Amino acid sequence: MVQKGYGGTSISDIAQVVGMTKAGLYHHIAGKQDLLFQILQHAHDEMERLVIEPAKQVGDPERRLIEITRRHVRGILDGGLEFTLLYRERHHLDDAQQETIALRTRAYLALVGATLQELAMEGKLRDLDIQIGTIHLLKTISGIADWYPMFSEIDEDHLVEQTVNFGLSAILKR
Amino acid sequence: MVQKGYGGTSISDIAQVVGMTKAGLYHHIAGKQDLLFQILQHAHDEMERLVIEPAKQVGDPERRLIEITRRHVRGILDGGLEFTLLYRERHHLDDAQQETIALRTRAYLALVGATLQELAMEGKLRDLDIQIGTIHLLKTISGIADWYPMFSEIDEDHLVEQTVNFGLSAILKR
Repeated sequence: MVQKGYGGTSISDIAQVVGMTKAGLYHHIAGKQDLLFQILQHAHDEMERLVIEPAKQVGDPERRLIEITRRHVRGILDGGLEFTLLYRERHHLDDAQQETIALRTRAYLALVGATLQELAMEGKLRDLDIQIGTIHLLKTISGIADWYPMFSEIDEDHLVEQTVNFGLSAILKR
Repeated sequence: MVQKGYGGTSISDIAQVVGMTKAGLYHHIAGKQDLLFQILQHAHDEMERLVIEPAKQVGDPERRLIEITRRHVRGILDGGLEFTLLYRERHHLDDAQQETIALRTRAYLALVGATLQELAMEGKLRDLDIQIGTIHLLKTISGIADWYPMFSEIDEDHLVEQTVNFGLSAILKR
């Protein structure tokens, strides 16, 4: 089967234009995919080490949510999670790689969601859709990687505490 | 002066590889920049029409903040602001274009910031850094463009109201 890409251009055409053999081009693309996959796996490893594992040690759900928020923001600011922005590129991975990364992302969402569920059972949660609340909290945190470089005059400790306040006030009755 | 790009490749080299004259390549790049600029200008026009102008009609700052949040989320969901995600590409614009877009973005940030300032004067604001609170609120809203396509089973009206609740609870004493 002739593989046709954008505008009817074949892989052979592209290989010719960029001066590579077809096998060489496949090798090049696979190499770039693997590099991105390794980087995203590393980012998740760091997330587990810096955020998830320490947070799981905290029994009280309110303190656990504070710990998750504080450690996730701190991870972004310290550069431990500097690859956060590369998540946007995950659609370039092959299917199996995408699934591996998606599973790890869902595991983190599940940890935060379960924490909000515990808070609901303790009567501490606002009238809040847990799924939406979980995602909004995590987007507030991960969004920092987007905008903080343009506002780097803001003190890091101040940003960490303000983000904890913002997120917890949105989620908890208090 | 010979213009050297990545890996010592000149503009002439690139033009040759992609089968264009040097003038043709510059024209092509300028055309893509202009297209992106027109799209981002259009997105800002829509933001003014759908969000900023109606919100400015609302005198009470709490009701204005609700109106901004609701209309911005609604604009994303209705596709009126579907180009939100292209903001990430604004660094591809030339300097003057980037400045024009940045001015419009800052004007929107200033509207939200001024609304939080009014709420502070009315004693309704939490102990919150207005700049950080403004950005977190807007990232919570604009983040929806990222994740909602993967969670499209969530009812739109429900998402709008939950986002208003999340954002307002984070910002207001209540």
